[in-house]
Amino acid sequence: MTKNIFENFSNNSPKGESFVPVQRAKYDFAVAYPDPESIPIDGLTNSISEALSREGKDLAIYPDKQGYPPLRQFVAEKLLLERQIPLESNEIILTSGSNQAIYMTAEILLDPGDVVITDDFLYSGTINIFQRFGAKILGIPSNNLGIDVECLEKNIKKLTKEKNKPKLIYLIPTFQNPQGWSLDLEKRKQIVLISKKYSIPILEDDCYVDLSFYGENLPSIKSLDPECDVIYVGSFSKTIAPGMRMGFLTAPEEYLNRLRRILPSGGVNQFASLAIYHYSKNSLPSHIESINKILLNKKNTMISALEEYFGKNAKWNNPNGGLYIWVKLPKHSDTSIAEPIAFNQNVGFLPGVLFSADGFSGKNKMRLCFGFNQPKEIQEGIKKLSNVFYELDYL
Amino acid sequence: MTKNIFENFSNNSPKGESFVPVQRAKYDFAVAYPDPESIPIDGLTNSISEALSREGKDLAIYPDKQGYPPLRQFVAEKLLLERQIPLESNEIILTSGSNQAIYMTAEILLDPGDVVITDDFLYSGTINIFQRFGAKILGIPSNNLGIDVECLEKNIKKLTKEKNKPKLIYLIPTFQNPQGWSLDLEKRKQIVLISKKYSIPILEDDCYVDLSFYGENLPSIKSLDPECDVIYVGSFSKTIAPGMRMGFLTAPEEYLNRLRRILPSGGVNQFASLAIYHYSKNSLPSHIESINKILLNKKNTMISALEEYFGKNAKWNNPNGGLYIWVKLPKHSDTSIAEPIAFNQNVGFLPGVLFSADGFSGKNKMRLCFGFNQPKEIQEGIKKLSNVFYELDYL
Repeated sequence: MTKNIFENFSNNSPKGESFVPVQRAKYDFAVAYPDPESIPIDGLTNSISEALSREGKDLAIYPDKQGYPPLRQFVAEKLLLERQIPLESNEIILTSGSNQAIYMTAEILLDPGDVVITDDFLYSGTINIFQRFGAKILGIPSNNLGIDVECLEKNIKKLTKEKNKPKLIYLIPTFQNPQGWSLDLEKRKQIVLISKKYSIPILEDDCYVDLSFYGENLPSIKSLDPECDVIYVGSFSKTIAPGMRMGFLTAPEEYLNRLRRILPSGGVNQFASLAIYHYSKNSLPSHIESINKILLNKKNTMISALEEYFGKNAKWNNPNGGLYIWVKLPKHSDTSIAEPIAFNQNVGFLPGVLFSADGFSGKNKMRLCFGFNQPKEIQEGIKKLSNVFYELDYL
Repeated sequence: MTKNIFENFSNNSPKGESFVPVQRAKYDFAVAYPDPESIPIDGLTNSISEALSREGKDLAIYPDKQGYPPLRQFVAEKLLLERQIPLESNEIILTSGSNQAIYMTAEILLDPGDVVITDDFLYSGTINIFQRFGAKILGIPSNNLGIDVECLEKNIKKLTKEKNKPKLIYLIPTFQNPQGWSLDLEKRKQIVLISKKYSIPILEDDCYVDLSFYGENLPSIKSLDPECDVIYVGSFSKTIAPGMRMGFLTAPEEYLNRLRRILPSGGVNQFASLAIYHYSKNSLPSHIESINKILLNKKNTMISALEEYFGKNAKWNNPNGGLYIWVKLPKHSDTSIAEPIAFNQNVGFLPGVLFSADGFSGKNKMRLCFGFNQPKEIQEGIKKLSNVFYELDYL
């Protein structure tokens, strides 16, 4: 039977090398972990105990497909207060992390050959999702104020003329992953106008907005104009824990209707929803305040270490929030070559090409995440990493 | 912008009426709830407290994409012991309920127009999944020993001749939903031979096997022949709680490789995985024993009530496990007409047509679930339901 195996699979089933579990370095600047010391273990334990004693029998019931209503109400109130997005809780869908929210959005919008416009560099997991639906990714150059809006519109015009109008503009406007910048307010407004002019919806991925070290955030794109079709995605992964797998989305009603029809029948994890809701209603704001102090300290440590060990041939941004520093090494550098060498020295980072919309740019760039290690380790790890780059003649 | 809205969506995005939240009757024989009094609330609370105090910091880490390794190991040992399926834990993928396991299997196997062979009546959620991938469902008649194997092979032969060989045989061989029977051992063996002869994989959905009231189960299809391509799916929804959203699958390596490539990047819910693992390793076997006593009592109560109130014009099976009784009313009955009338009397059930593979058979049939209500309520509810049917002249 095995000889015929390949005819058994669907045409779009991705092939390729077998899955390799992620390996982790001691100095792990690679994966986007929050601070493990700040996981609110006692808070979650108390919350789930309280929730189960009150509502545990409800676990017998297949959960609401859009997700646990009190948690949706909590998200609605948070989005009104902090992102100026007025919502009913029925306009919110809880998802298994932001990943499922982006996946579902791609599923209702994209057909093979469709174009999705993104930043020049973005999280590779998101690129993979769009590619799963056969989409072509068009990355637009950005600087420290975000995407080049003129170039964005020029490309939309050109593609529209070629009868291949983009189906979606995907943006992480706040503390962008991996580049760390926040999209300028004026640019946010211009993009809203472009979205309306060409009738192309925006997917605003606002997963990092809570990790704002200095307290102020630019308005969400979704809040700027209720007439603009913005699908808005958020997450508890960076504020409570990735292992809780809890994200959410909201969108204009026409989109919500399509999304509701593809929801898995069991909805999102009810057990985790109970814990997150009971924890968040009392403790989330103060918890976020405390993790931002910790992250600011870690970021400052990493910036100081870069200044001390990386010298003047490398450049990096100094983000106001989020988890990432985006480093540019001299042009001849190749971070994909350096990555396994650094890993042998117990230092992990992600090479820039992993994030490139075109699949090949970013050879001399890399993403460092300052969330996981403690400050002393950050200092040690950056020193070790600089040694790797010096030996490769990159610094 | 709204006038152009429909051009924004993908061609396969399901349209249709807006989502209506499920309404529940007091006597809820409709949805497949387990006994709410048996949700192991204290056990889960203690388990998650223990797990978080030991491993809570690991929530900071994006979980293993295949799922929490100790829980996979637990599942491997359980499947070896109880279903005679020898496995490494790396051959198991944890999923968000069995729903995601079936969805992912459909995703790697099915292209639009492909045929999936099923029982004549099966869970509508599964039908929906196959249809989402554009598959045609071909239901094969069954009796109280399960699917008609001769008819199965005749159809495969015919379709193969028409160059449309079925891509998948989907079966719930044990305590079938909604029909309650278990597939006869001889038929299991014949189906394995057919699967190999025509090179068509089997998806064995074994979600109900733990709910075995008399302790003995027929061997799993997967255990009968390691050369047969069987994707095997199980779940904790019926033994611990649906709200935990925890299922699992295993499959031959070629299938696992495809499945690993479409796993969501965050894996299954880690928080729920921790609770389930720490609960299950000590308590699952005794918990299953105790819920089976409760369910057997409820089943016997429902059977007695049917005998008392439904008289001789209706027929039903008396299952050895699972959650369902499948009732056949006289031919002129229409359970879709009766359903809203019964609902007004606070009795819920699901009409047979909801389960029919062809979308129209089963007009005079219905599924009763005896899991949710307490015995006294079961008796009351069946009496009320019989009154509805008498007034409609169905009994």
